[in-house]
Amino acid sequence: MQVRGAPLIGAIGAFGLALALREAASDAALAEAVHTLGATRPTAVNLAWALQRVATRVRPLPPAARAAAAWREARAICDEDRAANRRIGERTVELMQAITRRSGRLNLMTHCNAGWLATTGWGTALAGIYLARTAGIDLHVWVSETRPRNQGLLTAWELAGAGVPHTVIADNAAGQLMHEGQVDAVIIGADRVAANGDVANKIGSYLKALAARDNGLPFWVAAPWSTIDAGCASGASIPIEARDGDELRVVRGATGCTLQLHRDSPVANPAFDITPAHLVTALITERGVVDRLSEMHFASALKRNDPQNLK
Amino acid sequence: MQVRGAPLIGAIGAFGLALALREAASDAALAEAVHTLGATRPTAVNLAWALQRVATRVRPLPPAARAAAAWREARAICDEDRAANRRIGERTVELMQAITRRSGRLNLMTHCNAGWLATTGWGTALAGIYLARTAGIDLHVWVSETRPRNQGLLTAWELAGAGVPHTVIADNAAGQLMHEGQVDAVIIGADRVAANGDVANKIGSYLKALAARDNGLPFWVAAPWSTIDAGCASGASIPIEARDGDELRVVRGATGCTLQLHRDSPVANPAFDITPAHLVTALITERGVVDRLSEMHFASALKRNDPQNLK
Repeated sequence: MQVRGAPLIGAIGAFGLALALREAASDAALAEAVHTLGATRPTAVNLAWALQRVATRVRPLPPAARAAAAWREARAICDEDRAANRRIGERTVELMQAITRRSGRLNLMTHCNAGWLATTGWGTALAGIYLARTAGIDLHVWVSETRPRNQGLLTAWELAGAGVPHTVIADNAAGQLMHEGQVDAVIIGADRVAANGDVANKIGSYLKALAARDNGLPFWVAAPWSTIDAGCASGASIPIEARDGDELRVVRGATGCTLQLHRDSPVANPAFDITPAHLVTALITERGVVDRLSEMHFASALKRNDPQNLK
Repeated sequence: MQVRGAPLIGAIGAFGLALALREAASDAALAEAVHTLGATRPTAVNLAWALQRVATRVRPLPPAARAAAAWREARAICDEDRAANRRIGERTVELMQAITRRSGRLNLMTHCNAGWLATTGWGTALAGIYLARTAGIDLHVWVSETRPRNQGLLTAWELAGAGVPHTVIADNAAGQLMHEGQVDAVIIGADRVAANGDVANKIGSYLKALAARDNGLPFWVAAPWSTIDAGCASGASIPIEARDGDELRVVRGATGCTLQLHRDSPVANPAFDITPAHLVTALITERGVVDRLSEMHFASALKRNDPQNLK
């Protein structure tokens, strides 16, 4: 996990392919580099998407021209991601305002880190939070630590740097806070959205979606259009990355690390989970907001790739 | 948190009162000791229950006889708890067998530590697991680490010592494992059960109950009858202990501890949550199993305190 965050994994994969083509740019070398880079992280679709985009762009060119063209394509992916995230943020602010018009302020909950550390700029779930301040929204964010890798602490660090009021909680506390009425909406990013609207995201997202539904709260997923995988029928087809058990056995902090379980203790460490489409209130993309993912119009909008189908 | 586990908190509270009465045993001293000890942990009802039981027993006696009588009553509480837990375990095994008759084996999930470390013997949620082996049940247990205090590691240690196959997971992984069909039932303990069947237990229990319901899995709560608080109308009346934020900021392991957040970082640390009665498939007590807590017969069984109303 040298690189994390679906959009950033895609962008870095594209640059990785450009670097590989500097070494060798034959058809065989191109295919091998796409395969090797694509195998590094199975769940986020942005990696496969970015590699295919670069490969499709450079394959018609003579080998000597491929590396430079790949580099330009990688830069374009970054520029587009940053612009898309800003659009996602603007649409998120509109959803926020629909709540704050009623209650005056907003208690948002997020999970993992879907901020600028995970993208090429702004972030997905956090973009709206950064833009909310200029919209004058009185905002507080609940940040779950996101065991076992604790990426929530990256979110807390981002929010502290931007002066956004926030509170860190154990992942376990999410349900109780919603039950107590201390949360107005939940927003997360996504690693892959299937054609039926099922969402793969950081492990623990599904539990938050269940708690949001049980408490009548909106559950928003913020993701660029490139995260939608039209070739993936449902969440059942999304590979879930199983990561090293030592991520659970060894606890890392700012001042050192310590073992909490013996090295040979049996552990399981799935890194992502699937939130069924019917639990997602809104998918916020740069092309528009898709409400109630499980309904037919998500599939039809997806098929036509047509922003006109979106609000 | 020098003592943890609702039944053990009750038993230790009783011995604490006996020790206090050795120092001073006037009516005023008795009342003060009950008040002081009772204020140490607000959520588990067993503490208030045990203190009241000892106080009621010794109040009619002359002060000089109170300490010894309190000590005997505390011992009785321990003996009864151990016997009750064994009965709870036997009833749990019956529920397990209803599943294993169909599937041959059982994948159980638990949360926190409701084993012998949390009681005066056997445990509540874990009692059935220990007895399952003599019943020939092929059993595997998913153990969530239970942030922020990681009491799941106590469960893993108990199970390892008893040779019970188990796997430790991050709390976040519970939903995905259920969704994948890797769990047959969930069993937890309880710190307090309200008169309407709402269950207070370690933070994170509610999220597991939601995931169990979403996946059509039984969600069992194992608790001695003393955990039922007839005077508490619903979960909304149960005080939730808010613990020191440093439990989240400082991570402790076997070989040391490390800061994961600055000491002044804003955190919230509720220690328990409320699982609504309608999510509980069965309440397993030493007097019997109460199905579907939210139905009228729980309240009526409770009112009459009558095992005949129970299966």
